[in-house]
Amino acid sequence: MTKWVYSFGKEHNEGDATMRNLLGGKGANLAEMAGLGLPVPPGFTITTEVCTAYYENEEQYPTELKAQLEEGLGRIEAQMGAKFGDAENPLLVSVRSGARVSMPGMMDTVLNLGLNEETVKGLAARSGDARFAWDSYRRFIQMYGDVVLGVDHHEFEDVIARYKRDEDLVQDTDIPAEGWQEIVDEYKAVVLRETGKPFPSDPHEQLWGAVGAVFGSWMVPRAITYRKINEIPGDWGTAVNVQSMVFGNMGDDCATGVAFTRDPATGENYFYGEYLINAQGEDVVAGIRTPQSLTKKGRKKEGSDLPSMEETMPEVFKQLDDVRIKLETHYKDMQDLEFTVQKDQLFMLQTRSGKRTAKAALKVAVDMVEEGLITQDEALLRVDPQSLDQLLHPTLDPKAEKDVLTRGLPASPGAACGKVVFTSEEAEVRAHGGENVILCRQETSPEDIAGMHAARGILTSRGGMTSHAAVVARGMGTCCVAGAGELHIDVQGKVIRVGEREIREGETLTIDGSSGEVMFGEVATIQPELSGDFGMLMEWADKRRRMKVRTNAETPLDAKTAREFGAEGIGLCRTEHMFFDAERIQNVREMIFANDEEERRAALDKLLPAQRGDFASLFEIMNGLPVTVRLLDPPLHEFLPHAQDDIDQFAKTAGISQADVCQRLNELHEFNPMLGHRGCRLGITYPEIYEMQARAIFEGALEAADKTGKPPVPEVMIPLVGAVRELEILRGKVEAVAAQVFEEKGESLDYMVGTMIELPRAALTANEIAQAADFFSFGTNDLTQTCLGMSRDDAANFLPAYVGQGIYERDPFASLDVDGVGRLIEVAIHGGRQTNAAVKLGICGEHGGDPASIAFCESVGLDYVSCSPYRVPIARLAAAQASLRMQEGRLGKSEAPVKGAKKAA
Amino acid sequence: MTKWVYSFGKEHNEGDATMRNLLGGKGANLAEMAGLGLPVPPGFTITTEVCTAYYENEEQYPTELKAQLEEGLGRIEAQMGAKFGDAENPLLVSVRSGARVSMPGMMDTVLNLGLNEETVKGLAARSGDARFAWDSYRRFIQMYGDVVLGVDHHEFEDVIARYKRDEDLVQDTDIPAEGWQEIVDEYKAVVLRETGKPFPSDPHEQLWGAVGAVFGSWMVPRAITYRKINEIPGDWGTAVNVQSMVFGNMGDDCATGVAFTRDPATGENYFYGEYLINAQGEDVVAGIRTPQSLTKKGRKKEGSDLPSMEETMPEVFKQLDDVRIKLETHYKDMQDLEFTVQKDQLFMLQTRSGKRTAKAALKVAVDMVEEGLITQDEALLRVDPQSLDQLLHPTLDPKAEKDVLTRGLPASPGAACGKVVFTSEEAEVRAHGGENVILCRQETSPEDIAGMHAARGILTSRGGMTSHAAVVARGMGTCCVAGAGELHIDVQGKVIRVGEREIREGETLTIDGSSGEVMFGEVATIQPELSGDFGMLMEWADKRRRMKVRTNAETPLDAKTAREFGAEGIGLCRTEHMFFDAERIQNVREMIFANDEEERRAALDKLLPAQRGDFASLFEIMNGLPVTVRLLDPPLHEFLPHAQDDIDQFAKTAGISQADVCQRLNELHEFNPMLGHRGCRLGITYPEIYEMQARAIFEGALEAADKTGKPPVPEVMIPLVGAVRELEILRGKVEAVAAQVFEEKGESLDYMVGTMIELPRAALTANEIAQAADFFSFGTNDLTQTCLGMSRDDAANFLPAYVGQGIYERDPFASLDVDGVGRLIEVAIHGGRQTNAAVKLGICGEHGGDPASIAFCESVGLDYVSCSPYRVPIARLAAAQASLRMQEGRLGKSEAPVKGAKKAA
Repeated sequence: MTKWVYSFGKEHNEGDATMRNLLGGKGANLAEMAGLGLPVPPGFTITTEVCTAYYENEEQYPTELKAQLEEGLGRIEAQMGAKFGDAENPLLVSVRSGARVSMPGMMDTVLNLGLNEETVKGLAARSGDARFAWDSYRRFIQMYGDVVLGVDHHEFEDVIARYKRDEDLVQDTDIPAEGWQEIVDEYKAVVLRETGKPFPSDPHEQLWGAVGAVFGSWMVPRAITYRKINEIPGDWGTAVNVQSMVFGNMGDDCATGVAFTRDPATGENYFYGEYLINAQGEDVVAGIRTPQSLTKKGRKKEGSDLPSMEETMPEVFKQLDDVRIKLETHYKDMQDLEFTVQKDQLFMLQTRSGKRTAKAALKVAVDMVEEGLITQDEALLRVDPQSLDQLLHPTLDPKAEKDVLTRGLPASPGAACGKVVFTSEEAEVRAHGGENVILCRQETSPEDIAGMHAARGILTSRGGMTSHAAVVARGMGTCCVAGAGELHIDVQGKVIRVGEREIREGETLTIDGSSGEVMFGEVATIQPELSGDFGMLMEWADKRRRMKVRTNAETPLDAKTAREFGAEGIGLCRTEHMFFDAERIQNVREMIFANDEEERRAALDKLLPAQRGDFASLFEIMNGLPVTVRLLDPPLHEFLPHAQDDIDQFAKTAGISQADVCQRLNELHEFNPMLGHRGCRLGITYPEIYEMQARAIFEGALEAADKTGKPPVPEVMIPLVGAVRELEILRGKVEAVAAQVFEEKGESLDYMVGTMIELPRAALTANEIAQAADFFSFGTNDLTQTCLGMSRDDAANFLPAYVGQGIYERDPFASLDVDGVGRLIEVAIHGGRQTNAAVKLGICGEHGGDPASIAFCESVGLDYVSCSPYRVPIARLAAAQASLRMQEGRLGKSEAPVKGAKKAA
Repeated sequence: MTKWVYSFGKEHNEGDATMRNLLGGKGANLAEMAGLGLPVPPGFTITTEVCTAYYENEEQYPTELKAQLEEGLGRIEAQMGAKFGDAENPLLVSVRSGARVSMPGMMDTVLNLGLNEETVKGLAARSGDARFAWDSYRRFIQMYGDVVLGVDHHEFEDVIARYKRDEDLVQDTDIPAEGWQEIVDEYKAVVLRETGKPFPSDPHEQLWGAVGAVFGSWMVPRAITYRKINEIPGDWGTAVNVQSMVFGNMGDDCATGVAFTRDPATGENYFYGEYLINAQGEDVVAGIRTPQSLTKKGRKKEGSDLPSMEETMPEVFKQLDDVRIKLETHYKDMQDLEFTVQKDQLFMLQTRSGKRTAKAALKVAVDMVEEGLITQDEALLRVDPQSLDQLLHPTLDPKAEKDVLTRGLPASPGAACGKVVFTSEEAEVRAHGGENVILCRQETSPEDIAGMHAARGILTSRGGMTSHAAVVARGMGTCCVAGAGELHIDVQGKVIRVGEREIREGETLTIDGSSGEVMFGEVATIQPELSGDFGMLMEWADKRRRMKVRTNAETPLDAKTAREFGAEGIGLCRTEHMFFDAERIQNVREMIFANDEEERRAALDKLLPAQRGDFASLFEIMNGLPVTVRLLDPPLHEFLPHAQDDIDQFAKTAGISQADVCQRLNELHEFNPMLGHRGCRLGITYPEIYEMQARAIFEGALEAADKTGKPPVPEVMIPLVGAVRELEILRGKVEAVAAQVFEEKGESLDYMVGTMIELPRAALTANEIAQAADFFSFGTNDLTQTCLGMSRDDAANFLPAYVGQGIYERDPFASLDVDGVGRLIEVAIHGGRQTNAAVKLGICGEHGGDPASIAFCESVGLDYVSCSPYRVPIARLAAAQASLRMQEGRLGKSEAPVKGAKKAA
């Protein structure tokens, strides 16, 4: 018989942290904490397999579930000495979801379940606090009504507001027991009115209803969206945790709070968190009351007047701090905790690996190595390479002029600048249109996930450091200023009011998630600091990785930036970018308009000095490191004028009639330029172009060698080869030019000639091509386009539907399609090495900067990856992780790990 | 030591017909004839390997060649009892090229080599004919001067013309010995003037010069062009044949001629050929004198007054006729012969397999089976499937009105109609522009090859049935009327004059290569006859082939034509073609402009009845045979109006603003439509389109089943699948529609759902895709485009250079690229069968009608090929040949035979 229910707690503890897939993260960790002897209220977990079985079986539960659930409930009753539904001594429980990976805010929670007209009296009697009991009851109806019965929570809030108005009360805390009792009746009337059914009074009916609501919430659109964004398979399912209630709202000796064992924003090693006296857990997260800091240090940092828990409840705080150390030592990772204090007694309700900013992840990893908690290798695996992106981009220039509007909480670091938008939809629309936006909300909710993802920054007027906005933004690595209370954000009116000023939708704001500042307009930024923890981790990564990391660069600025980021050469210099320079484009166009080879050569001669200078300066910057130069690749029409003004101007300067210009434009028009007259096809039909470029490369290389004393090894790359003969012909021409240049200059240097593998035919005939190639560089952008028959520029109309319907797991242009493109790469490597064991192998498509793709590159044994300058550190770390995982045997051939998660077998 | 020289002749005969690759066709057959005891003047062959070595070794001969050549020469001398360069009894030789495959007119010949001031006297003395001797000498200088020394032949002709004018003579035959002697002196002066060097008098210098000229001519542009057109690899090289001279011009008991063992135009079994009394061989081919028929029958057929050889030289004719029978029995094929009669003695100078028209090939093959010479299988292999194309197209309607201008020789059958052009260049230009042209020349020469290829028909005013024009046209399968002497073709003036009439460039002529008629204007045509020899051969082919042959058709006319040609079903019905109908395109456009699914469904509902009718009628015509229907494939913008008029019209009819139309046009614009939002991507994003089409298919199929009583098995084909999930999703939708239709109609039928394999990713993941597919149809057009990264519409700018430089052996869109695309097909078949052994396999790209590609399809085991209606018979024969070759083990996996020739290993 399948075991569907696992108990946890001091007396019956059936799970542990390794059972995360079955029990969900929350359930597994509750059991783990109980196993460690920490004070966990008893309860049980309904496994994720129930969820999966439920959806596979037309939303029916397994038949054995009922009996197992009753048994679990019985164990809680036994341990608590209370009875579910008992009028005298009622057991109350919470019902919470818990998936394998944390999905903050996505799942619904019901507290105080088990209350009804009878048991509320028992609770009042046992607690000696009728007000607490009726408040708990109304909270239960409100949560259950919202989450399980689908009644709009405003309906309930209206009841309270009306009551307070009628009674002339200000705070909820002013409402007496009778008031809550009256409100409970009105709540029930609301439920009856809205649902057509009375609110359920049978605790078992309540329990099944709540369990069903948790499973049901697995399939609501917002949960599906979150999973899509985070690449979590739908068939993982969620578990349900049913746990004995403890109360943080039974009086001033009660409290509830959330904490991180270190600062999740900076990584600093001090106890970081917030609590509220006399409150239930949801109060902290919801951001309705402003929470207080746990520690004196934290209070000081935030400049808060409110006393810390360290001050108000020193003994319980001491216990909690012990728990903090115990959990960190046990889990060897920063933890995110939830606790409740009931009448001075501490209860742990959750522990999990804490979400953190990239900066914090880096610091925690490096600190923990220094503390002896983890090894360097473990530290390397702790940091998500993708997240480094946050640290590599500019931050606000402290010297820049700033028009500071107000200051909120520094909820997620980094600086962002963008146009103000007020809704998730607007954020998405504008972001798709290429605009940077700042999403501005009073507070965020799970419905806003898609917009938060699309925004550059998030700004809220309410909520604390652990509010929904703050937690989700940190997880996303998006900058966030939360709880900027001076802002009046009017979503309907599409305006933010602050003091006398108004900021309307579409105006520009800058926010600094590290300082909490909110500024009008755009503020200047400075480059990131690459030393300290960052430098240390990179040093460890460099020791571990096998693959070299190069950069894609064609400007001196990019080349210099990349070297600062640790690039070990240039893997792709796209020479066409050098042609667009205003001074050169005229010559390029004249070359294209040449009537014969002679005219073409004359125009090319004018381009030669500039190209030579381009290459000399790149070789100089790279100071002896390898530089791969790709000869001209795009179709010639890309260089031609298209706007009428440009055509006129060009015709005039070149002395060609407008009609001739237009005719040539027509001649060069292509139906499918991606598959047209480009790449080495230009070299075959106009060899003089490649000859000029080869000359510029060799002359530039000799020039740089003279200056630096370190002769570069130019790698001349022939693009778009599909047949070995193309490469043979063009290699011959390059070699002839090299010989000529070396003879003219009386000096020579080593060089290589190789090709992009970017067509399926090249991969399939790599055994032939390798005989004429010193290196292969996988051009995975074009290889993806041709292998999948999908134009990147045109895919926007269907690719979202494709990823949405699971046709492709991920955008194949962002992360390598291992089954298709990856297979071609393997075929090419196998074929290439067969005939040329020494062939050097690299990748220069944009996948070269994507961690999952880098893992694939390691698994197939590439020599290097090449990526854009800002992704070089990401690639260094990802390459180190891939090396480590290969050693551990965790990377099979053709099986790259997916980011975050992999589909269950 | 390598043997570079092989002797042939009665006494030393070192070769035979099997050594064609080494000795060239001519050399191998000379040796074979000598071995059969036929009268072959002795000689030797310098092998093709010398040519290859020569070009590989910077145009140097192998060192051993000289000695071996001397030895060969010695053997001729011994046999002829004459001595090369001897003043008394000089040996004279001819030097001729001879490649592996016959290349008519392309290679240069030198006769009478060995003559100089001394040996000419010896020749005069020995022959007793000083005039003959000096005429031979001047012929030698003229030929050698032209071919070896590069002196324009007009220079020589001018000398003769001047002499005749000065002496008031009309015919060359009027020139006496002294005249020829004088001309020889003037010829030498011409050579000295034009080349700066005296004409070589040393016979050995002459010989090496001629040998070098033959090898040199292998690389002249016209030879390279011929090889390109005929797909002959450049590294095959040519052999050189040095042979003792025999003379057809020593008097009226001498003659020279060419013959075919059967009529090469019709295939009729009678001795067909021409001869000239007292002439050298070149006189016949050059078309300067009008040759006479060999036989009485031939003379009668041509309506000639000139006596036949059968009449003038009955005894020698009898010998020749015996040779004819001996050679045909020996070679079991129609032969093309050259002979010379020297003083009533017959000498054979060449035999080779005779070029013939498709009609003749068919008749000869079928006749030879009936004569017991060859088997049915041999007959099947004798006919080039490609050549059947000629027989499948219309011929002139005998009842049509004809404005006959004149009549020439019926040199190559078929009828052609086109605009008059006078130069090869003009023919090419207009043909590329899509015009049909008739190339009109006084006579053609090898320089005209490209234009002859481009023309629909060839018309000459000079030359006989074996003139350059006639021979080349027959080889090409192009219709030709030769020697229409009444025509005055003025190439400079661009006008043809015939009697009083003038036909100018660009005016239309019709020529009938079967009757020799030349007609003004366009003449009506009739459909070909598919019975007789044709039907017989097809019957044999159908018994032999394993693969089925289907057709690509979407109109009832095409479907009917294809069935008449023997199609066994439809392999590709492109439904989009049905959408362009004037009445439907409005609905299609409304569907595209729909604002939501509901509007789209409404527009689709209007299209449904028409689609249903389309399919019903195809199913009916195919009467139970399988029909593969491809669901909508092209991007939607293909259906939209683009011209301003159309836009206006559409906007008005649809009630949409012009601005909205233009905006939608913009939205639908794609950079690379080939890789864009098309194929099943439309089905995924707009499932209602595919649902309508599926409904039309199933409703149409039931309708046809009711009418014919033979229920069709519709094969629903999903295009452009790249990932199995696409097919799973769309298969589900098709199945749902089928179930619904069957329920509504209360009847059902079998159907299949499959996919095009036209993306590399589909081929690479075929093992997954096959699990959701009942069949694969290889869409090799798109598979070629994506595998090679080459847009067919844009390839014209570089593909000719690619084929020219041997990057691709053949146009990969015409003949399957076996190494790239073929490899993907093999991967797909292997993968597909792994998971679905029953998966049905076919091809529906245009390669399905190309014999070499069909051979590949056989080698990898496809179940059927599908091609355009007119190619169905070609495919039937090619499939039979492929089956036969597979049985013989002559088709390896992945190794399809190339048309005509395959690169040397």
